[in-house]
Amino acid sequence: MADHEWVGRGYDTALGASDPTTITLLGANLAEDVMGEVGFGELAFWLATQRRPSKGETRVFEAVLAALADHGFTPTAIVTRLTYLSAPDSVQGALAAGLLGGGSRFLGVTEDTGRFLHDQLPDEPPSDEAGWDALALEVVAAQRAAGRFVPGLGHHVHKGGDPRTPRLMAIAREEGVFGPHLALFSAIGRVHPQVLGKTLPLNGAGVCGAALADLGLPLPLLRGFALLARTAGLIGQLAEELRSPVGNEIFLSVDRNARPVPPQPWAG
Amino acid sequence: MADHEWVGRGYDTALGASDPTTITLLGANLAEDVMGEVGFGELAFWLATQRRPSKGETRVFEAVLAALADHGFTPTAIVTRLTYLSAPDSVQGALAAGLLGGGSRFLGVTEDTGRFLHDQLPDEPPSDEAGWDALALEVVAAQRAAGRFVPGLGHHVHKGGDPRTPRLMAIAREEGVFGPHLALFSAIGRVHPQVLGKTLPLNGAGVCGAALADLGLPLPLLRGFALLARTAGLIGQLAEELRSPVGNEIFLSVDRNARPVPPQPWAG
Amino acid sequence: MADHEWVGRGYDTALGASDPTTITLLGANLAEDVMGEVGFGELAFWLATQRRPSKGETRVFEAVLAALADHGFTPTAIVTRLTYLSAPDSVQGALAAGLLGGGSRFLGVTEDTGRFLHDQLPDEPPSDEAGWDALALEVVAAQRAAGRFVPGLGHHVHKGGDPRTPRLMAIAREEGVFGPHLALFSAIGRVHPQVLGKTLPLNGAGVCGAALADLGLPLPLLRGFALLARTAGLIGQLAEELRSPVGNEIFLSVDRNARPVPPQPWAG
Amino acid sequence: MADHEWVGRGYDTALGASDPTTITLLGANLAEDVMGEVGFGELAFWLATQRRPSKGETRVFEAVLAALADHGFTPTAIVTRLTYLSAPDSVQGALAAGLLGGGSRFLGVTEDTGRFLHDQLPDEPPSDEAGWDALALEVVAAQRAAGRFVPGLGHHVHKGGDPRTPRLMAIAREEGVFGPHLALFSAIGRVHPQVLGKTLPLNGAGVCGAALADLGLPLPLLRGFALLARTAGLIGQLAEELRSPVGNEIFLSVDRNARPVPPQPWAG
Repeated sequence: MADHEWVGRGYDTALGASDPTTITLLGANLAEDVMGEVGFGELAFWLATQRRPSKGETRVFEAVLAALADHGFTPTAIVTRLTYLSAPDSVQGALAAGLLGGGSRFLGVTEDTGRFLHDQLPDEPPSDEAGWDALALEVVAAQRAAGRFVPGLGHHVHKGGDPRTPRLMAIAREEGVFGPHLALFSAIGRVHPQVLGKTLPLNGAGVCGAALADLGLPLPLLRGFALLARTAGLIGQLAEELRSPVGNEIFLSVDRNARPVPPQPWAG
Repeated sequence: MADHEWVGRGYDTALGASDPTTITLLGANLAEDVMGEVGFGELAFWLATQRRPSKGETRVFEAVLAALADHGFTPTAIVTRLTYLSAPDSVQGALAAGLLGGGSRFLGVTEDTGRFLHDQLPDEPPSDEAGWDALALEVVAAQRAAGRFVPGLGHHVHKGGDPRTPRLMAIAREEGVFGPHLALFSAIGRVHPQVLGKTLPLNGAGVCGAALADLGLPLPLLRGFALLARTAGLIGQLAEELRSPVGNEIFLSVDRNARPVPPQPWAG
Repeated sequence: MADHEWVGRGYDTALGASDPTTITLLGANLAEDVMGEVGFGELAFWLATQRRPSKGETRVFEAVLAALADHGFTPTAIVTRLTYLSAPDSVQGALAAGLLGGGSRFLGVTEDTGRFLHDQLPDEPPSDEAGWDALALEVVAAQRAAGRFVPGLGHHVHKGGDPRTPRLMAIAREEGVFGPHLALFSAIGRVHPQVLGKTLPLNGAGVCGAALADLGLPLPLLRGFALLARTAGLIGQLAEELRSPVGNEIFLSVDRNARPVPPQPWAG
Repeated sequence: MADHEWVGRGYDTALGASDPTTITLLGANLAEDVMGEVGFGELAFWLATQRRPSKGETRVFEAVLAALADHGFTPTAIVTRLTYLSAPDSVQGALAAGLLGGGSRFLGVTEDTGRFLHDQLPDEPPSDEAGWDALALEVVAAQRAAGRFVPGLGHHVHKGGDPRTPRLMAIAREEGVFGPHLALFSAIGRVHPQVLGKTLPLNGAGVCGAALADLGLPLPLLRGFALLARTAGLIGQLAEELRSPVGNEIFLSVDRNARPVPPQPWAG
């Protein structure tokens, strides 16, 4: 022991642990009390927050995951299929590559909306719809004055309304977990035309962020839940690619339409 | 259109699709019939197989996911924490890095076992325990003769028995989905001491592979389900790292104990 | 062609192209004029800027890559070794995992410094050292007033001076490519004690960013060059791990020092 | 120290190390003896083998890297561009995603060929061309008898000959590092028509693997050098995408040509 320096004092964790006869997870007996007793959405929530969600919270959380799991041939789906085409020996590589597209543009709205709404909430939230509308009006006007978009507002396809939005709000109400983030998001939906002069839909990614925030999930990891949902979607993409492959055709559609041009030196 | 060549004929998919008013997933209306109605484990199964599982199948599947979600400070967990330490701006990178450890050694047993059992099943499976035992005896003897291990047999900690194994078998029986893969795996557990001269546990990763195979999930993607489970676990690791960080201490415990040695040329 | 919609008009590229007898890269004949004629650093520069660098530019660029290639047991090095331990079947996964740590904290200084310096440069740069010092004084004072750090200033080990910094500046001078970014960075080194009241070193990652910016490399991709350098370093880490493995010991040093604690619910 | 268990005895490394005044790499003084003195290809070789290559070895190595750096719109290039489209905040994610395609199919030939040739070499290699031809004949015949391809033989575009192959062989001869792997590969090129009844080209990826093996680079990491080369190529792809973006158009060309089909349950 003389030739090294120990800097640690042990690594605390409440997650998985095991001894020869027992495995525990979050303080529970994995085999007896988790396996067969806890659904996967419920478990993911529990892992992230270290508290077991109620049935209603779980239902809302799983509705969010369903809303975000797969949107067809997104860049992330294409990436996973092309990576599998190139390296079929590594399923983990194909999934990881797809998740790496889960950044600011395509999957980031969920997190951006949740964080944005959270930052706007006053210490004492409004107690009625009029109060929420007044707050929302301030919020939208301030964004507009600053030349910034309101996260979660607008959709390039569902211009008249994203069907996920009212549905998720309804589920949250049914389960009694419609909280301040959804309340403010909803109010933004009502009042923004007064400020912006046009009506935009509250999009599905945004309402998911609001709902996740109301569930008390960690704001710095909201993107992580979109990625969890997407992992299930990308497995679906791979399973479909196995039976009905399109990766090679996508590759060829690009490669065969390449058009050589002269180098164009970077000008800064 | 004259200056390019189109090689495709359209890209078939049964996964996500949308038009201005409706979003469909697997042919179902996402907002009406999936959100709030379908649990996340159920949805992941559905996405992977394009058939909706029964309640019993879902329970077994979710028990498998629970069994594989987190095992404490595995290399993948450490990798996710260290990557987040290094690049806190990219949650997707931290999760992807962790999943990349889901290869042959640490997460591969699930897939190896499922595939191995599948390859051993005769066209006409045995009809009673004695039949399964006879088959298992052949299988284990053949592996031994070839100098190969039996996937799913043995565990470095749970030497006297992995608690997940009997539990998952019991759940599968309760739900009526104890099929030939689990039957053969179970028989291997009974007969291998006759061949190997010692008693090894049927490990949890292996029984999960057997159960996933019995559920009819795609064999080439069994590793993918371990990765899905692990994604939830890694989010848990990140959430814990946010509150109770150990990444920097792990890094320092390595860095400060580095011992410079002279270069040692590669000798082939 | 009737059943699909083509949206593209061909994909322009000046990079690799081939026909049955010839391969071109950046408009040059790959086999005849690139292979055996162009060094790897030179080629990387050429690929990034689409202009072939001079010998002097190449020397400075390669000095930067050498400065950033490997820093021992960094988080990225540990991540690559642990991922290889877990998934030895996938060298690409081990390298990719390591690169994913190349984010804001550990590899980001290079890009941050290059961009920061660039943003501070006036249309008409100073013509003598006194002019640069005056500009640097403004820049440091403004950062201080805003409560922000000056990127590239300070180092936790090389408190008295990072040996890479004067060396890279000397090489850049020798090669006649000591430009405005290095001039400003150098001036910051001279004047910051007047503002901050203490003397900090100009660190190696920062001077590399300044040099890359002076070379006219794409600012949005400066981090990419740190990653290129690091790829070579990570291959070195893997090659050493093959002969003198430490990954498993690192894993065990964490796993065996895990200390189970009760779950601590996320409080927001 | 009483509450934990230390399992290590220090982590040996000959790679990067530093103290307050000096940084060493591979036992050399980084600032004085590496920066400005060692090219990037040379350094990558040195890092991988822990021995400094000769000028001739470096030239062959860099010719290999040039041969493998970029092949236009490969799946890996498309993946990097799409990932950047989706997550422009993370250059490291875009590069890592591209590298994850560096698996068995598209980048694996280099490693496969190097390893394959190595496995065929007898303890006492032939001393003349006739001897190599006889060995090659055996090797090709054995592969054929086993129903296996000869790695490195054949190319879907360069059917009449890959221009990189004779060029790399010529460079290796010029530099005096044309060793047994290239000798056997070359002989396979001469004799295979006698066995296969048709003439196939020795491809560029294959000759690169042979050359890397002759240089004494680590066989288990040959794929790593293809990935290093490709990292430079992918930075080129990103730099071009910044100026002349095609990612969104590729995405749309897939998305708009999606053709919804009914779910097709997995049949095993």
